[in-house]
Amino acid sequence: MTKEQSAPGGEPLRVALLGCGVVGSAVARLLTEHAADLTARVGRPLQLVGIGVRRAGRTRPEAGVDPTLFTTDSTELVTRADIVVEVIGGIEPARSLILRAMEHGASVVTANKALLAEDGPTLYAAARDHGVDLYYEAAVAGAIPLLRPLRESLAGDSVRKVIGIVNGTTNYVLDKMDSTGAGFAEAVSQAQALGYAEADPTADVEGFDAAAKAAILASLAFHTRVSGRDVHREGITEVTAADIQAAKDMDCVVKLLAICERVDAHDGPDGPTPGGVSVRVHPAMLPRRHPLAGVREAFNAVFVEADAAGQLMFYGRGAGGDPTASAVLGDIVAVARHRVGGGHGPGESSYADLPVLDMGQALTRYHISLDVADRPGVLAQVATAFADHEVSIETVRQQQIPADLDDAAGPGHAPSAARASLVVVTHAAPDAALSATVDALAALPIVRGVNSVMRVEGV
Amino acid sequence: MTKEQSAPGGEPLRVALLGCGVVGSAVARLLTEHAADLTARVGRPLQLVGIGVRRAGRTRPEAGVDPTLFTTDSTELVTRADIVVEVIGGIEPARSLILRAMEHGASVVTANKALLAEDGPTLYAAARDHGVDLYYEAAVAGAIPLLRPLRESLAGDSVRKVIGIVNGTTNYVLDKMDSTGAGFAEAVSQAQALGYAEADPTADVEGFDAAAKAAILASLAFHTRVSGRDVHREGITEVTAADIQAAKDMDCVVKLLAICERVDAHDGPDGPTPGGVSVRVHPAMLPRRHPLAGVREAFNAVFVEADAAGQLMFYGRGAGGDPTASAVLGDIVAVARHRVGGGHGPGESSYADLPVLDMGQALTRYHISLDVADRPGVLAQVATAFADHEVSIETVRQQQIPADLDDAAGPGHAPSAARASLVVVTHAAPDAALSATVDALAALPIVRGVNSVMRVEGV
Repeated sequence: MTKEQSAPGGEPLRVALLGCGVVGSAVARLLTEHAADLTARVGRPLQLVGIGVRRAGRTRPEAGVDPTLFTTDSTELVTRADIVVEVIGGIEPARSLILRAMEHGASVVTANKALLAEDGPTLYAAARDHGVDLYYEAAVAGAIPLLRPLRESLAGDSVRKVIGIVNGTTNYVLDKMDSTGAGFAEAVSQAQALGYAEADPTADVEGFDAAAKAAILASLAFHTRVSGRDVHREGITEVTAADIQAAKDMDCVVKLLAICERVDAHDGPDGPTPGGVSVRVHPAMLPRRHPLAGVREAFNAVFVEADAAGQLMFYGRGAGGDPTASAVLGDIVAVARHRVGGGHGPGESSYADLPVLDMGQALTRYHISLDVADRPGVLAQVATAFADHEVSIETVRQQQIPADLDDAAGPGHAPSAARASLVVVTHAAPDAALSATVDALAALPIVRGVNSVMRVEGV
Repeated sequence: MTKEQSAPGGEPLRVALLGCGVVGSAVARLLTEHAADLTARVGRPLQLVGIGVRRAGRTRPEAGVDPTLFTTDSTELVTRADIVVEVIGGIEPARSLILRAMEHGASVVTANKALLAEDGPTLYAAARDHGVDLYYEAAVAGAIPLLRPLRESLAGDSVRKVIGIVNGTTNYVLDKMDSTGAGFAEAVSQAQALGYAEADPTADVEGFDAAAKAAILASLAFHTRVSGRDVHREGITEVTAADIQAAKDMDCVVKLLAICERVDAHDGPDGPTPGGVSVRVHPAMLPRRHPLAGVREAFNAVFVEADAAGQLMFYGRGAGGDPTASAVLGDIVAVARHRVGGGHGPGESSYADLPVLDMGQALTRYHISLDVADRPGVLAQVATAFADHEVSIETVRQQQIPADLDDAAGPGHAPSAARASLVVVTHAAPDAALSATVDALAALPIVRGVNSVMRVEGV
């Protein structure tokens, strides 16, 4: 302690913990280990008054947690705390317990992305009505301080776009596919063996986890209510080794991206399109020179473009007991400081109330690799299909493929079966127009097959 | 506005701006351009009531600033504002005006790193005594939300190390030396031509700017008072093309780093060394795979290691009118929300009061490239010099250099003038021991010259 400051004392602030899995037990341990520092930083001691669990008496993964703190009566526990920390996950009983805690005057810290994406406004309204804090830094990108910068540091700026790698499992899988040439199934098995993927990896590989986080990020970035249901979602299960190779040929990597974008009103192919926000999760090619392209293994990172600040990136561990607990502890200190010093943090801000656009209205760029007949006029037909949908081509690369033995003619001869590959990268266009163009291309007789279609971001 | 929320109204909060250079004029413009958003986010309108300048009537770089707002009487201006924004820079009159503003009950937002590093505690004490906020996100790394994450998001964690690229000018210069092979003087000229370096680049290239920022970062990270004078400072003026090449040979880049590190008590060569914090600015080699190594041009980035959170990185623009103004605006919104909602942000926290260690007590690693006589026993003599100072060698690489023409003997003959280069990378050791080792090596008769000595970080 410095001489100028008196020892913080007074009544302890009572902390109730709901859930004692990997994150919960790390929170309990850090609350104990860092007790002296936390007291100094908050101005009053924090006292863990109970840990709500489904079944008491089970062995807990972390040592150092006082066994008498466990209770199966979370409904009672939340009524005798100043701060309730919810790390159960899922919708119920988490929602009921959080609402009950707020009714009894407790501030709430949660890491529950699914609940926030599903029914955030109910929680935000309850926090406002009861004059308590609701903090949830750990819900997106684990340890990375991201939500506080978005809703506080950038509060005087205007966010244009957020692009995030917010799911460590899928980043690990795609990174392995890129670095080892493994197929999707093989890479998932590796991730499972290392504990980076669940036995049932659906929530991760189908993009549900990333979509919930995208909804939370978009709500904060654009001061607009966005729920998980508003998010266009495509997972990585259909990403093939051929897609990864096609990306390499473009000096790109494939990443599963959560994208939140402000779209200004513009003229679409079907007339004027209103402005709004596009919120989507899908795999995309990203140039290797982009700061997000270097995010390896199970790390997370979020890239933000704001009008005045320009480009920002936040990088760190998106999951794991200790990293997630670090974010939870930061929130506990913040809401505890408000208890001690008065006031509370900024609540939900949804004043902008922008429309959430359909995926078809999002402006995207496509990389399309086609297997075409190698004869004069093919490029003209392909180019016409793009022009019909008012999609502008940025680059096109044509390459002859040696004819298959089956339908090979003599050398020097150009048989009808000779083939070429055609790789097209478009300028930005409404996603609906790009998607319709791909359908039209697939239907052209001169197109033998569509090898790879993927969106391109970060250019 | 959503239907649930009523239009924010009430008395405007009065904002006074001190200084109207590149940053000040951007702040004034953004306050006007974003007025509606700011009102919605704060809950009350923000009204710019005056802009204090040294000489009224000068043409301002930004359009859209009401000329009647300018005043040369800043002493009066600060008494009629709820929020005073100081972007004059330098020690005086900035310090007197800030203190006067606080005495009159205003919260203060400043971007003044020099003042905070020189006399921060006086300002923090005044803010506490008058119950007002003092925010300074823009003082370090411009637009990058960094101080708020450090003092709020990581408030429940324990920061071990902060490594920052916090000066855009020197990063630009070193990046050019790396990518083009240019020498220091040439790279500085390029930076000046592009506006990345001042006509007198001393504050940047000698590390003064980075040292002020390191002091601010260390104070926040370690809850300890660190002033600019406590920071060991080495600039980049002595970094040569040979150093850059030596780094390349190690698959490293050279960066000017601001390093703030918690050092545990350990046994040094002169007996037990107490724990404390090491705060230093110097060029260092960084492996190319390190996230900071990819920070190019004039960008800034700060890498943080915390016990629970693990590795984090924050990346963005460290300077420029709009990026810096974005950080200032974020702080304005934060302190304005406190005015509306009650309470205030966390003040100075210096409870830990750790000793600031001398540079000699810091634990560093050295890369040393020597020009030595090529004869048996040389490596033994060099290794003995390291052992004498209890410095452990990690790797050593020896390479024969073709003898100079002047002292060349016939081929197949090993004359006493034959030379070799010896590149040594050490394990971590007290910097004083490493420095003494270099002196001892230079004094060895078999050492013809010391080609390059540089610290190594991030391994």
